[in-house]
Amino acid sequence: MMRVAVVGATGYAGGEVVRLLLSHPEVQISAVYSRSQAGRPLAESIRGFQGLVDLKCESFSTRQAEEAADFFFLAMESGEAIGAVPELLKMGKKCVDLSADFRLQSRATYRRWYGKEAAPRALLKEAVYGIPELNRERIKRARLVANPGCYPVSVILPLFPLLEERVVAPDDIIVDSKSGVSGRGRTPKDPSDHFPECNESMKPYNVAKHRHAPEMEEQLSLAAGEEVKVLFAPHLVAIQRGILSDIYCRLLRQVTTRQVLALLRSRYEAEPFVRILEEGKWPETRFVAGSNFCDISAVVDGRSGRLVLTSAIDNVVKGAAGQAVQCMNLMCGFEESLALKQAPLFP
Amino acid sequence: MMRVAVVGATGYAGGEVVRLLLSHPEVQISAVYSRSQAGRPLAESIRGFQGLVDLKCESFSTRQAEEAADFFFLAMESGEAIGAVPELLKMGKKCVDLSADFRLQSRATYRRWYGKEAAPRALLKEAVYGIPELNRERIKRARLVANPGCYPVSVILPLFPLLEERVVAPDDIIVDSKSGVSGRGRTPKDPSDHFPECNESMKPYNVAKHRHAPEMEEQLSLAAGEEVKVLFAPHLVAIQRGILSDIYCRLLRQVTTRQVLALLRSRYEAEPFVRILEEGKWPETRFVAGSNFCDISAVVDGRSGRLVLTSAIDNVVKGAAGQAVQCMNLMCGFEESLALKQAPLFP
Amino acid sequence: MMRVAVVGATGYAGGEVVRLLLSHPEVQISAVYSRSQAGRPLAESIRGFQGLVDLKCESFSTRQAEEAADFFFLAMESGEAIGAVPELLKMGKKCVDLSADFRLQSRATYRRWYGKEAAPRALLKEAVYGIPELNRERIKRARLVANPGCYPVSVILPLFPLLEERVVAPDDIIVDSKSGVSGRGRTPKDPSDHFPECNESMKPYNVAKHRHAPEMEEQLSLAAGEEVKVLFAPHLVAIQRGILSDIYCRLLRQVTTRQVLALLRSRYEAEPFVRILEEGKWPETRFVAGSNFCDISAVVDGRSGRLVLTSAIDNVVKGAAGQAVQCMNLMCGFEESLALKQAPLFP
Amino acid sequence: MMRVAVVGATGYAGGEVVRLLLSHPEVQISAVYSRSQAGRPLAESIRGFQGLVDLKCESFSTRQAEEAADFFFLAMESGEAIGAVPELLKMGKKCVDLSADFRLQSRATYRRWYGKEAAPRALLKEAVYGIPELNRERIKRARLVANPGCYPVSVILPLFPLLEERVVAPDDIIVDSKSGVSGRGRTPKDPSDHFPECNESMKPYNVAKHRHAPEMEEQLSLAAGEEVKVLFAPHLVAIQRGILSDIYCRLLRQVTTRQVLALLRSRYEAEPFVRILEEGKWPETRFVAGSNFCDISAVVDGRSGRLVLTSAIDNVVKGAAGQAVQCMNLMCGFEESLALKQAPLFP
Repeated sequence: MMRVAVVGATGYAGGEVVRLLLSHPEVQISAVYSRSQAGRPLAESIRGFQGLVDLKCESFSTRQAEEAADFFFLAMESGEAIGAVPELLKMGKKCVDLSADFRLQSRATYRRWYGKEAAPRALLKEAVYGIPELNRERIKRARLVANPGCYPVSVILPLFPLLEERVVAPDDIIVDSKSGVSGRGRTPKDPSDHFPECNESMKPYNVAKHRHAPEMEEQLSLAAGEEVKVLFAPHLVAIQRGILSDIYCRLLRQVTTRQVLALLRSRYEAEPFVRILEEGKWPETRFVAGSNFCDISAVVDGRSGRLVLTSAIDNVVKGAAGQAVQCMNLMCGFEESLALKQAPLFP
Repeated sequence: MMRVAVVGATGYAGGEVVRLLLSHPEVQISAVYSRSQAGRPLAESIRGFQGLVDLKCESFSTRQAEEAADFFFLAMESGEAIGAVPELLKMGKKCVDLSADFRLQSRATYRRWYGKEAAPRALLKEAVYGIPELNRERIKRARLVANPGCYPVSVILPLFPLLEERVVAPDDIIVDSKSGVSGRGRTPKDPSDHFPECNESMKPYNVAKHRHAPEMEEQLSLAAGEEVKVLFAPHLVAIQRGILSDIYCRLLRQVTTRQVLALLRSRYEAEPFVRILEEGKWPETRFVAGSNFCDISAVVDGRSGRLVLTSAIDNVVKGAAGQAVQCMNLMCGFEESLALKQAPLFP
Repeated sequence: MMRVAVVGATGYAGGEVVRLLLSHPEVQISAVYSRSQAGRPLAESIRGFQGLVDLKCESFSTRQAEEAADFFFLAMESGEAIGAVPELLKMGKKCVDLSADFRLQSRATYRRWYGKEAAPRALLKEAVYGIPELNRERIKRARLVANPGCYPVSVILPLFPLLEERVVAPDDIIVDSKSGVSGRGRTPKDPSDHFPECNESMKPYNVAKHRHAPEMEEQLSLAAGEEVKVLFAPHLVAIQRGILSDIYCRLLRQVTTRQVLALLRSRYEAEPFVRILEEGKWPETRFVAGSNFCDISAVVDGRSGRLVLTSAIDNVVKGAAGQAVQCMNLMCGFEESLALKQAPLFP
Repeated sequence: MMRVAVVGATGYAGGEVVRLLLSHPEVQISAVYSRSQAGRPLAESIRGFQGLVDLKCESFSTRQAEEAADFFFLAMESGEAIGAVPELLKMGKKCVDLSADFRLQSRATYRRWYGKEAAPRALLKEAVYGIPELNRERIKRARLVANPGCYPVSVILPLFPLLEERVVAPDDIIVDSKSGVSGRGRTPKDPSDHFPECNESMKPYNVAKHRHAPEMEEQLSLAAGEEVKVLFAPHLVAIQRGILSDIYCRLLRQVTTRQVLALLRSRYEAEPFVRILEEGKWPETRFVAGSNFCDISAVVDGRSGRLVLTSAIDNVVKGAAGQAVQCMNLMCGFEESLALKQAPLFP
């Protein structure tokens, strides 16, 4: 059994890593860390774990890391992993970092959007962007994986193949994403995260200026071989889990809905977690809730010469913890879908 | 007191007309009609009305209309008003029709989208499209008003002035709308309207092929003076009331967010029910729930040369019953906002 | 027009007083107070009020009270009204206090449950407990009304007549109440008020030790003419507004459901805001949401010799602001239901 | 691998049996049956199963049962299993029936509450009531298990030990249960199951006359050794999954909260799915959602001489499918918690 530590285990992403690993046959959770809950059982902070998890939260420091585990999931505030990761790597540990610290190769972009000094260039170079469907071989060899942002996952998976194949224009992409409130994290950031201020409502926020836009653009530019520009409008919707992303693109050549779906299907047919829907069906977040699936549909609108891609993921699973576990499986030579085959809850 | 009848009073739109009229000082509800509930008190079908409404539902027929009321709100299935309206007009009654029967001037478009024979040309000519902010003078003189669809209201109000002023391109408009489930009507249309099949989920439907797209296009073409094309993607979200519409348009000239907001503000400054938000604020459906307001924001994205307009309405009020009452007020010479000044519920 | 001030106007109860008063024909809101929002427009804090309320929040002090208004609604933290009220009364103002400060006649009980010194005896003696259905004449003559707690309203209205008539035993009453999350107030009290920690869940809290139990008992003892004991179990349910209370009592004599309903109906038949449902119907919170109604049902269970009373109110209206406005109407000689005849939102 | 069939696989309970069995290491789903969906893939009806379940629904008949499977889960309408079970048993198959057909040993009671002829006496005698925590040894030897109703599970588990130990009075038990809407089943039974008619509301139904009351009473009488009477008030709450039951009982002797908890803990300490909470904590449905846990708290109220037990289960798991799989594990000699160790979703 590989010994695994989760740093930030009382947050939604960290807690979900723990939940998933509980059913992992090759892994044992050896340590859980939480600054605010240090000294208290994890099952007091996440009461659903009572009877399943018997660990106490500790305060994380790399000094005890040597003994604590072989593999580290880091789910800390942005900026905090930059110091810890080099030491962990030096000790021979492998890491998946769930923050934004290693997602952006451009250090200037990181600085601009996160208002902090970026990770050292060498470390960024080593970090692999953790979308297995696109970077599987590099992830297998990686010591450090940068787990992608939740919105970017929902956008990159459907768009990547179409930019690669030059089906859609790289400079005319509009993304309208809708997220459940768990995407806000466990610590209320705002009075508007209070239940009666969110419930029964929908709203946009940070339109055309959300941190996940540059992340999408950097990755999608790799697909296009040229600069991609995304107009990104995120929204908050009063549900628990789920991201639904609609991606509006301009077609560079005449294609039918069927052809787009065929292209996506051929690209993803061996993938266990990407489901290309039949023509005329659309994703619903409830059909992925609690699972690691990404569901994708496509509609070509002849009148406007546009393609509408829609994707649904569970932001906490394929958008965070599930993705991270999938990367760990690859990094450690395990079967890629171990601990990830749980079906969505229905209803 | 003017005597008013509501046909289809047990549905969500008809019931809301009744709710609003209860606080109207110039109007008395003299008759309520419902095919399925004929013979039963309205307050049995809408139990919130107990103690407030003492009327029994009747089965509607134009034979008794002469005596029944002076003014008719028609909230019936599509196609049903086409027969009734000419007789009501002949009797000297005025009508607001909440169905689609008189919304489209193009009879071919109606036939294609609704699969039925359209209303006679003369009747369509007489019908005024019921957005007071755009057609106030014509509504004042109208005998027949076609109350707009819920989605079109949320799209036409923000877009109209910008097309009129040629700020945005008429052939490159993308609308991503999100609606609460009350928009599905009171009679379940689908197994997926069952609570556990909707709750905690979001989904698109009828992308690029929803009936409200041609309605938007017909009206917006009047603003633009040329054909407008809209790529329309509606979504269902697990809340009760509210439509949030994001409208992505291409700018025809360089403008700032501030300039767009100023243009909208000057267009709507005398309007009691349109609120142009300050720069940096976005609409939330909770801030309009239960009210007749339409809240509008704008963001110019320099990088993509696009403008993002966002609007929020309560689909049952400004998207249906409130709009209808506002039109009635105009048609009958009442103060326009009578019965419509209720503040949104908070929280 | 009477000039009215609302202290604590940015909270849920205070904000709702403002919402209701907007449609009051005899009243003008002359001042709104909020410690945290002083200096900012009320419509910035409650954005639904934009275009309807043009007042800036001020920091409350009795020094400016003389000029500010004739009537004061006080919605402050417990303990804060005790100092302010005597000064307001001295200036000849009338007050409805929405806190617990004047609800309990027993000063010892107040001290035990609120951990603070109680109001002076003379002031308590003057304060009238604000349930118009029970204390109408005293409220009419009052200068100071103690607006009841939300749970107590839902329990006292159905139980009072049955204790008065000695139909049920005063020492064997169990109350199981379920409240929407707005009952927690606008300021999150707990990490568990965060949307994802409440949503899609239900839980009891403070079972057999909630502050509203002694309040119910004090009032109900007046009805019974002897000490009443209530086992009170409150619950939180993931909805916005509404309290549903089930009250399980032991029958002192054999009665039928029909007889109980008749007794309740005869007691409340002239009341505009109490609706006794027909046999076989039960209250639903949606049928009172946004309104000042209290709906009540009764079922006699012959097998156990028990009566089950169920009531539904909107905790923010009949459970707080609506009740307060109803009291103001009585205190000021207005028609009792002014500003309170709004029908529940449906759906 | 044991071959298992699920009859009624497209309903909520049947679908959940399938979901759970997907992670069962000793079992293979060999057939799924659905009258309404016969001929269509199960993954079309439950779209979350796409990529996970490759079976087509068939129309169930015992004629093909011989070949179809070794073990049958029957989730049909009440009355339907009575004919099928004897034939299946004759073929040597084992069955868990999720309907009410074999839950009540009293045939008269079944007839009265379900309006149908009860199962033959011999068959009822053979059927074991499927609560493993109480009937483990009998379930291990059973060929036919009657899977309990969802409400009864939530009531019997906390009450059984206290009746056995004569801590509480058997003739004075009040149960106030609150259920999520999935408890209504997948086929809308009522217009009030429509999303906008349920959402944001709570209501009681069938107070003192719900079919699950006699089921509770029959089982609890076994614990008490005398007739138990339950006043049962079920409620519907606008959430997806979860039952919260409050049980109010009269104490027969003076005990403390701590003593009651100790008694419960000692009774259930070896149980993998029953969690007795610490003093001062209460169950929340979110902490059991998606899992097979039953969480239980207790509070003694000295003033009223009453005990309040509260339990939370996921009605679809411990209240239906999880319970059924747990029984299957016992009946087939598998480790009891196989496929059932999934942690609750959080958040």
